[in-house]
Amino acid sequence: MSRLFMFEKPLGMRDTLPELYEKKQHVRSLMEEAIKQWGYQFIETPTLEYYETVGTASAILDPELFKLLDKDGHTLVLRPDMTAPIARVAASRLLENDLPLRLAYAGKVYRAQQREGGRPAEFEQIGVEFINDDTVSSDGEAIALLVSSLKKAGLSQFQVSVGHIGFAQELFMQILGTNGRATALRRFLYEKNFVGYREQVNSYSLSSIDKQRLLQLLELRGGAEVIGQALDIIEDGYGKESLLQLKELWEVITDYGLKDYVKFDFTIVSHMSYYSGILFEAYAGNVGFPIGNGGRYGLIEKFGKNASATGFAVRLDKLLEAMGPQEVTNTMECIFFSRERRKEAFQLAETMKAAGKKIVLQDINGVKNLDAFTKNFANTTYLIGGAS
Amino acid sequence: MSRLFMFEKPLGMRDTLPELYEKKQHVRSLMEEAIKQWGYQFIETPTLEYYETVGTASAILDPELFKLLDKDGHTLVLRPDMTAPIARVAASRLLENDLPLRLAYAGKVYRAQQREGGRPAEFEQIGVEFINDDTVSSDGEAIALLVSSLKKAGLSQFQVSVGHIGFAQELFMQILGTNGRATALRRFLYEKNFVGYREQVNSYSLSSIDKQRLLQLLELRGGAEVIGQALDIIEDGYGKESLLQLKELWEVITDYGLKDYVKFDFTIVSHMSYYSGILFEAYAGNVGFPIGNGGRYGLIEKFGKNASATGFAVRLDKLLEAMGPQEVTNTMECIFFSRERRKEAFQLAETMKAAGKKIVLQDINGVKNLDAFTKNFANTTYLIGGAS
Repeated sequence: MSRLFMFEKPLGMRDTLPELYEKKQHVRSLMEEAIKQWGYQFIETPTLEYYETVGTASAILDPELFKLLDKDGHTLVLRPDMTAPIARVAASRLLENDLPLRLAYAGKVYRAQQREGGRPAEFEQIGVEFINDDTVSSDGEAIALLVSSLKKAGLSQFQVSVGHIGFAQELFMQILGTNGRATALRRFLYEKNFVGYREQVNSYSLSSIDKQRLLQLLELRGGAEVIGQALDIIEDGYGKESLLQLKELWEVITDYGLKDYVKFDFTIVSHMSYYSGILFEAYAGNVGFPIGNGGRYGLIEKFGKNASATGFAVRLDKLLEAMGPQEVTNTMECIFFSRERRKEAFQLAETMKAAGKKIVLQDINGVKNLDAFTKNFANTTYLIGGAS
Repeated sequence: MSRLFMFEKPLGMRDTLPELYEKKQHVRSLMEEAIKQWGYQFIETPTLEYYETVGTASAILDPELFKLLDKDGHTLVLRPDMTAPIARVAASRLLENDLPLRLAYAGKVYRAQQREGGRPAEFEQIGVEFINDDTVSSDGEAIALLVSSLKKAGLSQFQVSVGHIGFAQELFMQILGTNGRATALRRFLYEKNFVGYREQVNSYSLSSIDKQRLLQLLELRGGAEVIGQALDIIEDGYGKESLLQLKELWEVITDYGLKDYVKFDFTIVSHMSYYSGILFEAYAGNVGFPIGNGGRYGLIEKFGKNASATGFAVRLDKLLEAMGPQEVTNTMECIFFSRERRKEAFQLAETMKAAGKKIVLQDINGVKNLDAFTKNFANTTYLIGGAS
């Protein structure tokens, strides 16, 4: 291979070195533990899926999919998310008795990058899917578990913003009448471009009352009081129904004792096309990107089962970014030995490991630069030469 | 998507359901813990690598590689092993001070299957790479850590067979003189086709003494006594040098107190083209396939650094197969609640989770088939209707 090329990795692909590996493993295991305690069962799905099944069911756009051909000419994709594969498994193997189903995962997903920009093409998501329970309690559980698992992971400052896919959509249809104009406004919300949203609203030929209703949507952020404000601008129909769901959700969250972590934000919409009800995003400190998000979705139906579901996914890299730098103490010790005292060294190491220590056993003849090597250890022991 | 196709997975791709997931996680974490205690640091490398770097450095044959093209027309591969990516990372970022380097990994590797046959196209390897220490002590450490981590994982009946790439190779060259004939014999050894080996030897026109030497190789299996037997059939040179290494290795293994787990087997050769010294395979019970293997290799040199390394990889699926069926006790409990007693239910669940229990909180209105659902739990509690 050429010398210049040999250390290169594909665009967006990264190595994880020991210090970051340890942090990721620590946070992942704390989240997994919390999720298991809530009765969720972890499953794993393959890295590669058929484009025809999981690829098309996923909400990730085609240019972001890593595609390849198998020997029979079928297109395969590296899974772009975990929700579609889990919907496949649930529908094919786990929904036999029409029961509520609580599944969880911790796995890599893949999104092809089109240019250098620091965005990873492979990253890890930890999440849950609560399938086949239509109660608002199940939406509440997804949010409460998101809050609970983030707390367990050690994150202290964060907020979950909760909205409903139906409210803005219904408001837009009541006022604008066409899906095209609704889509234009929804895109501004998705991009959090509120200036653009205002300009767009003002460009429409509408009564000043209707313009006010559309602009008022941007103000619907806060606690339980937002429900009342929202009721004032929506007419009867699905939009009002979505408010009743959110009202009940607030009571559920209050009963969990978690309302300090949750606020309403009716401007939340998602690029995920399969969401169908309550949806939410978790934000922390200075990370300009949700560390997790979720909501109710109808994806299972694409796999032939009449079941809705709710769930969330947390991005492990964003969560670690939100947690900031953490102190790492090196506790590794080293026992240097030579042949004469090898057995003694091995026995000492065995005793120290039994006491929970991390011990490197190093043949002194294997080290060319002893000074530099010893710097890696909290403590060193020399069992060299003739027995003492 | 078509209904028939929608549950399908690509050839050799598998789902891991909760029970197997738990077993894998348990065994993986026990092995990881053992490996960390020996002072190895875990790293992670990307799923996708350039064919030009890791793909060509790997010993996996081209038809087994999953390949795709990136937007610039470069060929990418799903990593077929972990040794080549770790060699890339070590050479590019971690070998700066020319020190011994102990790295470890637990990750998926990918091997395209050409036909249905029950072989997985994606499986998990746990392993170590001990880089830049040329002592026999480091080969001994790799073997001792393999034994030690398998024991920690809970495997009781297994054996590590140890050989040397140099012995058979040198014996073949001393007697046969050409690489072509040596390769033919080596292929029989790799396939463990000893009948074919004998026939091939007998087909050569050689003195009966030389034929005896070649046939004697098949008998070189057992404890320390094998070294002496091997010395009888080899002439001076690298073959004899390899025996001195194995003699010292035996002493190292003895000092570790692990010689009951190890035997010599001079018929071991590997399909991995990069092995350059001592090599070994771990076998357990009735699994007709090594659960792990390893040895010394020169692969780092392909990445521009003058360092050899030793290491091993264990296949998690084979290890679980060797461990056989294990008892799983379901400890999951369920609290059913209705709106009136929701808060009480949430508080009870919190208390029980704080005591380490796994608790499903289930809104009674979310369950269509209560009888079937309750069967999933070791215990159920009902907090329904008016407060008691």
